[in-house]
Amino acid sequence: MDAMVEEIKPPVKNTLLESLTHLGEGSTMVQQIFEMIGHSKFFADFTREDVDRLTGFMQVYRANAGQEIIHEGDVDDYMLLIIEGRVEIVKTDSQGNHRPMTAVGPGATLGEMSMIDGEPRFATCIAVDSTTFSVLSRDSMVKIILEEPGLGSKILIKLVTLLSQRLRSTSSNLLHYLER
Amino acid sequence: MDAMVEEIKPPVKNTLLESLTHLGEGSTMVQQIFEMIGHSKFFADFTREDVDRLTGFMQVYRANAGQEIIHEGDVDDYMLLIIEGRVEIVKTDSQGNHRPMTAVGPGATLGEMSMIDGEPRFATCIAVDSTTFSVLSRDSMVKIILEEPGLGSKILIKLVTLLSQRLRSTSSNLLHYLER
Repeated sequence: MDAMVEEIKPPVKNTLLESLTHLGEGSTMVQQIFEMIGHSKFFADFTREDVDRLTGFMQVYRANAGQEIIHEGDVDDYMLLIIEGRVEIVKTDSQGNHRPMTAVGPGATLGEMSMIDGEPRFATCIAVDSTTFSVLSRDSMVKIILEEPGLGSKILIKLVTLLSQRLRSTSSNLLHYLER
Repeated sequence: MDAMVEEIKPPVKNTLLESLTHLGEGSTMVQQIFEMIGHSKFFADFTREDVDRLTGFMQVYRANAGQEIIHEGDVDDYMLLIIEGRVEIVKTDSQGNHRPMTAVGPGATLGEMSMIDGEPRFATCIAVDSTTFSVLSRDSMVKIILEEPGLGSKILIKLVTLLSQRLRSTSSNLLHYLER
């Protein structure tokens, strides 16, 4: 493993994905992914060539309504891009109740934090309808950084920008509560 | 500008730094920076060679006690690494009061969010004692990504990991307040 990615945790077995329907490599769905990317904040300015290269590192899965695609507390390391369908995000509160946080659709990305930092999942994501999504595992991300450093930097810059925006928004909300 | 960094906002003039004492290029302080990096979460696993290369892209400044090194609301684009001294972080609340958030010392990094996303500063950072710090501007970060892609990926991975950890922690705090 090259020194530049040595601090990324080694990949883990993404067991949950085995319970879902594997539809094949991302490259078999490159057209659908490219069309959907216009709706995606994350991939908005990716070119067709970027998408062609990126999808070669992705796998496509389908979950039926009610199936989990990410489970809170699990240690796994993929992020995903919703191609079709709808996903609800649910977080367990300190009383053990499941609190719905939000729901997202095509173009949304989920699971970026664990893909990079390897910490347990923060929330559960459940397919509301039959949902198709493409998966980028940490292992594939490491391969992209090593084999396609330009594309790797582009994805990493996007991740930093996205997390930074979420952190600003969450910190502002927290301050609002602290002031009351 | 290479396509991989085209979505990074163009660099801005970092006016605030002009009010501080410029001590020279980072490479003139590589030994101090390397020794301090053992205390830095951000740079902990950077090798001597990484530090040698990175400091070539940094500038070192000193602020006197009471001087601001980052000003809330400003649009500028540097992150910094504290080499010596102590810095207080202060946030303005909705009543216009300045609320001290925390204080940090050697090895801490500040200002990472605006360095990447180009949004206005979230809080003010004030030198408590005479403080020496090295600065990495967005312009230098872009140069690193283009000229030293391995080092660039390593810094970006660190940024993603750091922001992800802060977002987990801030989100947990926010949930705690929402539950009350």
